[in-house]
Amino acid sequence: MAVIKPRTLSGFMELLPARQAQFEKIVDTLKRTYSLYGFTPLDTPIIEAAEVLLAKGGGETEKQIYRFSKGDNDLALRFDLTVPLAKYVALNYGQLSFPFRRFQIGKVYRGERAQRGRFREFYQADIDIIGDEKLDIMNEAEIPSIIYKAFTSLGLERFLIRVNNRKILTGFYSMLGEAEKSGDIMRTVDKLDKIGREKVRSLLTDELGLDDSKAGEILDFMSISGKNTEVIAALEKYRGRNEVFDIGVDELKAVTSYLAAFGVPEDHFAVDLTIARGLDYYTGTVYETTMLDHPEVGSICSGGRYDDLAGYYTDKKLPGVGISIGLTRLFFVLEDCGLLNDDILTAPADVILFPMTDDISAAVSTATEWRKRGVRVQLYTENKKFKSKMSYADKCGFPYVAFLGEDEIRAGAVSVKNMNTGEQVTLDASAAAELILGGIAGRADGRIIIG
Amino acid sequence: MAVIKPRTLSGFMELLPARQAQFEKIVDTLKRTYSLYGFTPLDTPIIEAAEVLLAKGGGETEKQIYRFSKGDNDLALRFDLTVPLAKYVALNYGQLSFPFRRFQIGKVYRGERAQRGRFREFYQADIDIIGDEKLDIMNEAEIPSIIYKAFTSLGLERFLIRVNNRKILTGFYSMLGEAEKSGDIMRTVDKLDKIGREKVRSLLTDELGLDDSKAGEILDFMSISGKNTEVIAALEKYRGRNEVFDIGVDELKAVTSYLAAFGVPEDHFAVDLTIARGLDYYTGTVYETTMLDHPEVGSICSGGRYDDLAGYYTDKKLPGVGISIGLTRLFFVLEDCGLLNDDILTAPADVILFPMTDDISAAVSTATEWRKRGVRVQLYTENKKFKSKMSYADKCGFPYVAFLGEDEIRAGAVSVKNMNTGEQVTLDASAAAELILGGIAGRADGRIIIG
Repeated sequence: MAVIKPRTLSGFMELLPARQAQFEKIVDTLKRTYSLYGFTPLDTPIIEAAEVLLAKGGGETEKQIYRFSKGDNDLALRFDLTVPLAKYVALNYGQLSFPFRRFQIGKVYRGERAQRGRFREFYQADIDIIGDEKLDIMNEAEIPSIIYKAFTSLGLERFLIRVNNRKILTGFYSMLGEAEKSGDIMRTVDKLDKIGREKVRSLLTDELGLDDSKAGEILDFMSISGKNTEVIAALEKYRGRNEVFDIGVDELKAVTSYLAAFGVPEDHFAVDLTIARGLDYYTGTVYETTMLDHPEVGSICSGGRYDDLAGYYTDKKLPGVGISIGLTRLFFVLEDCGLLNDDILTAPADVILFPMTDDISAAVSTATEWRKRGVRVQLYTENKKFKSKMSYADKCGFPYVAFLGEDEIRAGAVSVKNMNTGEQVTLDASAAAELILGGIAGRADGRIIIG
Repeated sequence: MAVIKPRTLSGFMELLPARQAQFEKIVDTLKRTYSLYGFTPLDTPIIEAAEVLLAKGGGETEKQIYRFSKGDNDLALRFDLTVPLAKYVALNYGQLSFPFRRFQIGKVYRGERAQRGRFREFYQADIDIIGDEKLDIMNEAEIPSIIYKAFTSLGLERFLIRVNNRKILTGFYSMLGEAEKSGDIMRTVDKLDKIGREKVRSLLTDELGLDDSKAGEILDFMSISGKNTEVIAALEKYRGRNEVFDIGVDELKAVTSYLAAFGVPEDHFAVDLTIARGLDYYTGTVYETTMLDHPEVGSICSGGRYDDLAGYYTDKKLPGVGISIGLTRLFFVLEDCGLLNDDILTAPADVILFPMTDDISAAVSTATEWRKRGVRVQLYTENKKFKSKMSYADKCGFPYVAFLGEDEIRAGAVSVKNMNTGEQVTLDASAAAELILGGIAGRADGRIIIG
């Protein structure tokens, strides 16, 4: 009868139940965190008119896009959540209140070459704050606290939020009289981590035609590091030579000045003049987040300030700031590095209840009462041997198993076994619910990510 | 600069923030309900290989499907969540434990003719219980309690869960010696509500060629109604004439016998011999759910028992029972009928905090402390006039507004205004958090659906 071999396309993540439960907990934690900062949930279609989605056009993106016709319609699948946001804000401008803070966690599609850890369908978890004409710098200052709260809520401890300001970079290159080459210079300097100082120097002089002293000045500038106050003190020495630079330094000072009040420890935050984050889009503060023990993973949460969200759809000037987490890739990496906490509760229910009599009324009533109290209960009624039932309970990872036999029914009680300790007690249904909820509560606080 | 008119495709639901917040609350409530019954969350790709998705092939579905190529791949968007479940279970059979209970809430795609209230992209919210070879009837008995819990948790009161058993129907038609015509007869009888008894009688005799007495027997059978016990008593009179029929009656008795223990009031449940739910797929209990005051909407939650989930992918016999809610259409209908409760909290945060001084450290610290306590806080730092700030707070529907000026800072306090009552108090930050959380808790219990 079976005629088609079941398979899932390569580049598409499909998880087994316990892993999926972990993934859901990450999504729930991010939603809760974003909500704490006043972001409203948004959902936009996965399919859009191709001309709308590709308004900006060109580049690598267009090659990767899933585009097709249905009837007369030229359609495409969204490749990020930013273009749909721009469309949404332009379309609903009159009905939104600004600043407009939204989060969206959804699937996006890119037909990349299939390889390990690259996905064609993947979740992005984005937040953006959109202003009407203006957007105060304090919105940029708040972002690191959201990143910090998100990852610490997930359990991650060993990470660093790196921040820079694009105005400092463009201002600095203008000071050197190299404003026109600033894009090329940033692309080159971006390689410092990978190829080192001397090779970058060669590229700056040989390929970009900068003279030795300018290349040296750039490299010296990029080597500014230390505590936030030290970096800013070093930047202050350049003040007065370029207006954009000075604004950039003021913005950076604003972003760093409230960190403690926002609850971000100094050791989780660093000003890093080498990061630039793309070349056209961002215009102010930029963010990257790296795992200290896994630098090879690259940034796990990036974003920045932009001046013009929706220029392709509207003449309104809509500046904004946002960050994005590539959730599917992050999840893959966490699993790969062994950083997912497999001790957290991933079972489909808190307790599995086995009726031991033919009439299961008492078991049904107990399950109903427990559910009213918020206990997640699986009622098991298959006709199997005891051993097979316990093996099922064990495989699914239920933290508690409950039995309801004639003795219990006569006593108005239920027997509950803690599958972790092996301890078994007989209690009335109400006390049993308390026992189970108490046991679960302890595990719910567990970190989803360990590292 | 703006070159492309922003638009959203017709047949695709895209909601404004307050509506979206209501939609999210419905999704969260369904997730919580399904979890209470031991269903594990699942997520499968939206894109599948066309040959996998269309294994069953044919019919209306194939015409409506979004199908396209990317590279060498013949791809299609899922049109329901059942076929992907069948694929998933067949593919991962060895790693799953049975009965396997999963819920999935996700978007599916059907290129239907665009018309009001019809969607091309829509959410389905499905639960299924899959057995390995066997699945006990009690799983079918539990389903009405899940439907009841789901809709009452959403706030809906005026609904009826209608249940039938396909074995009773096929058994009855066999008794009449019309087993081969049973499909046609069911299709005809299905029209009773719409065209009435006499027109159905004509169709049965003229089109299907049944003699008058058989047509009369069928119509008499279909008019059996009353309390569950009365319907079952009427069915018992047919016992002994057909084995399948007798099994069907036993199953129906099992399904109805534990209703009270499962917490389903008798007035929310009815045996209804006229419902059949499709013609090939279901083999036992079938369910429909209708809104008492809006019969024109049809069934808002349907499903049933099937014997062979994944025959196209595997030789394993995998019986199951499941139900599905067409969430996008339901949401559209609820809005259309004015049944969405617009009094529930849909603001992006519980409180908006306005710093009234240049140094906003105190406001940042207060926001940080409140967030630690679980209060959702929007910190507002735009340079606007007071009136404009209050108008923003009002439009977004924040239940509380907080002010932090020099007086408050000196006193170590914060002023909090209840936007509903207009009452304003000045408290320390900790007491203010309690006040806000207390006020919010009252609204969180609110019904999402009124009706």
